[in-house]
Amino acid sequence: MINNYELYNPTRLIFGENRIEELNQYLPEKAKILFVYGQGSIKRNGIYDRVIDILKGWEYVEFSGIEPNPVYETLMKAVKLGRENKVDFILAVGGGSVIDGAKFISAAIPFGDDEPWKLVSEHLEVIESIPLGTILTLPATGSEMNKGAVISNKATGDKLALISEKLFPVFSILDISVLKSLPKRQIANGVVDAFVHVTEQYITYPIGAKLQDRFAESILLTLIEDGQKLYDDIEDKDAGANVMFCATMALNGVLSSGVPTDWSIHMIGHELTALYNIDHARSLAIILPALYNLKINEKLEKLVQFAERVWKITKGSDIEKAHTAIKYTENFFKSLGISTKLSKYNIDLDFTIKSIKEKFESRGIDNFGENGIISIDDIEAILHKAK
Amino acid sequence: MINNYELYNPTRLIFGENRIEELNQYLPEKAKILFVYGQGSIKRNGIYDRVIDILKGWEYVEFSGIEPNPVYETLMKAVKLGRENKVDFILAVGGGSVIDGAKFISAAIPFGDDEPWKLVSEHLEVIESIPLGTILTLPATGSEMNKGAVISNKATGDKLALISEKLFPVFSILDISVLKSLPKRQIANGVVDAFVHVTEQYITYPIGAKLQDRFAESILLTLIEDGQKLYDDIEDKDAGANVMFCATMALNGVLSSGVPTDWSIHMIGHELTALYNIDHARSLAIILPALYNLKINEKLEKLVQFAERVWKITKGSDIEKAHTAIKYTENFFKSLGISTKLSKYNIDLDFTIKSIKEKFESRGIDNFGENGIISIDDIEAILHKAK
Repeated sequence: MINNYELYNPTRLIFGENRIEELNQYLPEKAKILFVYGQGSIKRNGIYDRVIDILKGWEYVEFSGIEPNPVYETLMKAVKLGRENKVDFILAVGGGSVIDGAKFISAAIPFGDDEPWKLVSEHLEVIESIPLGTILTLPATGSEMNKGAVISNKATGDKLALISEKLFPVFSILDISVLKSLPKRQIANGVVDAFVHVTEQYITYPIGAKLQDRFAESILLTLIEDGQKLYDDIEDKDAGANVMFCATMALNGVLSSGVPTDWSIHMIGHELTALYNIDHARSLAIILPALYNLKINEKLEKLVQFAERVWKITKGSDIEKAHTAIKYTENFFKSLGISTKLSKYNIDLDFTIKSIKEKFESRGIDNFGENGIISIDDIEAILHKAK
Repeated sequence: MINNYELYNPTRLIFGENRIEELNQYLPEKAKILFVYGQGSIKRNGIYDRVIDILKGWEYVEFSGIEPNPVYETLMKAVKLGRENKVDFILAVGGGSVIDGAKFISAAIPFGDDEPWKLVSEHLEVIESIPLGTILTLPATGSEMNKGAVISNKATGDKLALISEKLFPVFSILDISVLKSLPKRQIANGVVDAFVHVTEQYITYPIGAKLQDRFAESILLTLIEDGQKLYDDIEDKDAGANVMFCATMALNGVLSSGVPTDWSIHMIGHELTALYNIDHARSLAIILPALYNLKINEKLEKLVQFAERVWKITKGSDIEKAHTAIKYTENFFKSLGISTKLSKYNIDLDFTIKSIKEKFESRGIDNFGENGIISIDDIEAILHKAK
């Protein structure tokens, strides 16, 4: 039985080639703009110049230095700058981290005298936000068309989500011309990130949501075909356009409409990133095969559907099909130059297990994943399988 | 090469069982509401009472009698009522015709002293509109989550589209509990209407838009499976939920993102409805097979893709696969009790051909469909094939 749900997404996607040059049509007239970006790659690849050329027509201040896994302390400097300049629009140019950071800034600027971290730590309702527009430079997280952000706090060691309808970007420009300057590693990470976003909403248990399932399979099939193509040939514009649309549709609310979701791979992966600074997508590629193999019985029906429809596996028992599908998925990640084993990273397994279990326990988490099928003790088994 | 596009859809879908009872959470506080509906079926099936029970908490006026293929003259009575009562919200309860009519009313009320028909006939920009919420009683047209409406004018004989971002409903309640009171004929019509909405955006020519194609195929596959199921058993809630979500996703902007579209089946079908009052969906079921058979070479690549992916046809030449897919589609329509032949209706073929050709000529239309592959003379061949 499909659950009741709401589907709401007011972000305007502006998609295609050389759409950055149309930015002036989407910026509010006479806005005072806070222009935020990351650590300078947009200066090297020419996107910065393309944006500045248009921003000439507006009053704006610039804030650079939002890091991967954006940090509260850094973002608060942008909040200060925005407040001092009384900005009334934010333009974020970057990947998921820059956009996530900009969402926090957008909520924090009008938050008043209290500590804006409480928006995150105490899950306060976002009552007001500064409107945000984005130019996406890396297809991966889907943040360009959703209401969520993940923010880290150096002082407390927390990495937490901020979610509010007030955080949907007003517009997001998806200009496929940005892809050609991306390093292969980033393309691979983006494809895997989007892929796992889909499986977290799809490989759970069946409830008869046929359209949501087929949409999920549509994205997976397209990422497998065109993720590889784009990785091999960064100039392939159709592959680029398809990967970009896939990454956005993977996490904009459609796939999760009325269905159970998992997110355990992300929860464990986040801890690997926190401990060892392993790229987000790479942490997911390590956890996914191990976790699916451990929970193969609990997830069997959907793993078989995934095997048959996505990997076109027709032979073998259900368990065999599921195992083969997980193997093929691993091979897909590897073909993008992404390792699926912890041993490729220089880590102490026992310390890692102990640290992650303690982290979950300190947060009071007993069971997670759909139906709570993952226990704290499973973390040990998953990391052993992933070693 | 995928075309540049914008994707924007701010309508909030409120989906599931007994969602009508949550209407109070979505109506603006203290709004003065114009409550519009059709020809009274909602009184017979209990939806009217469920709505009225909630509207008690608001000031409202009621307007009934919006007909299938909503008529300007009728709608203007609602506009007058809305203006007299200074309404600031419209609640439409019905199928596509009621929602289309409500969209026109929403644009016409604040239009000023001039004749509101000009919004339609002269394609004037909608500058202001009264916010609209809907409760969908029949999955079919997709109007509940898009910006278009089709309005007829008795005096001039025109049936024209009104399109504006100001016409997106603020919310649409898709309550699957409404399905069980629908006549089989309406279910069948809705399934076929949604099906042809998809093919008009999909069976054209390939441009490499893999995700849009797969999303289209996802909807078609689900409509074939669950459209039939729902037709056979109106109590099947999962089938109902899937058909409802399919019909909405079929025409909310996602499928047409960056791809060529056809719409020639609708253009000819509309004229059959205008001449003989044949149900909209039934007119499409007559034209589709004839038109695809006539233009089989022009549409061959997509027809073969449709054959292989949707109908799982693996044998035969490309032309044979395409013919078989069209045949299977016809059989699907027939299995829903819908005839695909003009001879099942009492019409004069020569008069019909002459009338439709004259209508197109009077509008200055030479060629239509993707790439203008349909000529005025093709209308004759199509109607002969459909006889």
